[in-house]
Amino acid sequence: MEKRIKNIFSNIEKKPDVILIKNSDEPFIDDNFFYVTGLANGLFEGSVAVLFQDGSIDLIVSELESEIAKKAKADIKICRSEKDFDSMLKESISSSSVVGLNFDGISQKEFCKLNEKLPGIEFMDVSKSFEKTRLIKDELEINSIKKACDIADKAMKKIPEFLNEGMYEYELAAEINYLMQKNGADEPAFETISSFGKNTAEPHYTHGDAMVKNGDFVLCDFGACFKKYNSDITRTFVFDKASDKHKEMYETVLEAQRIGFEAAKVGANANEVHHAVESYIDGTKFKGRFIHSTGHSLGLAVHDGGARFSDANKFELKENMVFTIEPGVYLPGYGGVRIEDVVLIKKGRAEILTKTSRGLIEI
Amino acid sequence: MEKRIKNIFSNIEKKPDVILIKNSDEPFIDDNFFYVTGLANGLFEGSVAVLFQDGSIDLIVSELESEIAKKAKADIKICRSEKDFDSMLKESISSSSVVGLNFDGISQKEFCKLNEKLPGIEFMDVSKSFEKTRLIKDELEINSIKKACDIADKAMKKIPEFLNEGMYEYELAAEINYLMQKNGADEPAFETISSFGKNTAEPHYTHGDAMVKNGDFVLCDFGACFKKYNSDITRTFVFDKASDKHKEMYETVLEAQRIGFEAAKVGANANEVHHAVESYIDGTKFKGRFIHSTGHSLGLAVHDGGARFSDANKFELKENMVFTIEPGVYLPGYGGVRIEDVVLIKKGRAEILTKTSRGLIEI
Repeated sequence: MEKRIKNIFSNIEKKPDVILIKNSDEPFIDDNFFYVTGLANGLFEGSVAVLFQDGSIDLIVSELESEIAKKAKADIKICRSEKDFDSMLKESISSSSVVGLNFDGISQKEFCKLNEKLPGIEFMDVSKSFEKTRLIKDELEINSIKKACDIADKAMKKIPEFLNEGMYEYELAAEINYLMQKNGADEPAFETISSFGKNTAEPHYTHGDAMVKNGDFVLCDFGACFKKYNSDITRTFVFDKASDKHKEMYETVLEAQRIGFEAAKVGANANEVHHAVESYIDGTKFKGRFIHSTGHSLGLAVHDGGARFSDANKFELKENMVFTIEPGVYLPGYGGVRIEDVVLIKKGRAEILTKTSRGLIEI
Repeated sequence: MEKRIKNIFSNIEKKPDVILIKNSDEPFIDDNFFYVTGLANGLFEGSVAVLFQDGSIDLIVSELESEIAKKAKADIKICRSEKDFDSMLKESISSSSVVGLNFDGISQKEFCKLNEKLPGIEFMDVSKSFEKTRLIKDELEINSIKKACDIADKAMKKIPEFLNEGMYEYELAAEINYLMQKNGADEPAFETISSFGKNTAEPHYTHGDAMVKNGDFVLCDFGACFKKYNSDITRTFVFDKASDKHKEMYETVLEAQRIGFEAAKVGANANEVHHAVESYIDGTKFKGRFIHSTGHSLGLAVHDGGARFSDANKFELKENMVFTIEPGVYLPGYGGVRIEDVVLIKKGRAEILTKTSRGLIEI
């Protein structure tokens, strides 16, 4: 992980002496803690990682995670009290006057506490560097993401087999998560979305107790988390016969996604990918019904570092970035279609890491 | 939810004009957003809730969650751009000069952004009030927690039936999560722990690819999340015949938990509960091998508001607080035992909300 840490420093113009990662309690855990240590297990509430310019790390962890922490290549300090913690922290940064912090990954409360504990230290925000460094995945990361995609694919391909009359949304979610875990997922990447009928028109609806009925769109959006890395895939099925309206919506989204795949290549700008997809949809009868960004960076976090294919994002695509491409069309009160896949940006055509077929399936 | 908001204000001595909750991206979502709205669904990244002293709320949400947001009793504003957002925010707090913020639930970055967007506004930390208010659960909350406990119980009771020779830790986790979701859990409350053998000695180890073998402790620690509320239960089994050492460890933890149940009552101090449990274990041959707090407040968050049964926590127990009681004994390289249940603090004896039997089970 030495190289990752050196990259983080090299992406900062005016370098801090050290960089400090401080976890709070769940859910306020900075996933950069796992990025710099390579650890794929453990909670590490309250833990600290101090990163040095030579790529080395000091870890301050509680006894609860002392065994897990040993798997990291780091100088590990086990703290048993707040007093322990304070003196270990001071020792680690003893020769520093400027300390880098990820302002995106630390709560305002923790920030105030650090200010109190470390008087005279100047803190600087290095969140942009974490974001920039993590945008480009290394080989270990790509392998984990590919494995996570593979697990999600296996679950998605089974859905047409087990979605039956009388099934509730929450039952379908249970089956999906079960399949992913049996195939090696540590947990679902996020709360699995399995929505039926008009609920599919709400992009962030997860699942409830609606029962599937004829004429429903069935939207499944989920991912696997494998060794802290995530996948994210969406397919929309029709139960059981598709109408012309179903087909028209579906084909529109499918073509929009194809345009997205074409646009997402090295050298393109992120907002161009979004514009290509959005302007295609806005040229159909579903104008204005694509109401979110075209995709997001994916990795340790599902929305990895805030980089998206959207209007507001202007950055150049580079090799080994990983994104979702997920256009959708939503008709409130009727239903929605979204098709989502994970792509690895390459010099030529992007490599699509999720392999489930994309044609309309009637179940 | 009006009453909850009024309680939050009444627990602040010098009251701010309004209180603002600002979500960042996952995982930096302030669960108080759900506490004050009563919403049990949706992600609400970037959303804002403005709380007024009369108990009313303004919500600023994106179109993604506009349908879900309608279920809240609130004045809902749908924003379509950053500019929209800024003007809606300014309008909502137009007559305020002091704005309360939960410093525990907002990232340093979001705090800096608010400071920029709202020049001249004085921000005050009201995190203590959220914590204090949420410590005491209302009826709706207790009902959801009871349902979450019931779901976890149903899964735990089944484990001795399906844990078989040749099973891997991750398979057991998959079965547990499946059972919980089939019984109505929205998702696992946290990453399910199902550890075998010496892995049980690491309290925060989750699950890996160890296969169960004779003489293993099997430690299962999980919870259900139901309508945003959590349960948390642990049982430790022996596969398949318990040795005298297994039994001695188990009985020690069981007695320690019984002492915890006795101690956790209205009027007791939180650290007294911990001291009673810890000093019992330290009077046995397992002295020093209980390495975490005796329990934590439970609710919308699994570790709800930082209140724990530990040395450092000095507060009086009151009616309708909900805690876990979870002593453990850990022998590195050998294994660990933890027994955990959820209790509702009452005037008399605490009510144990998780109902799975606590005696040693050989599988």
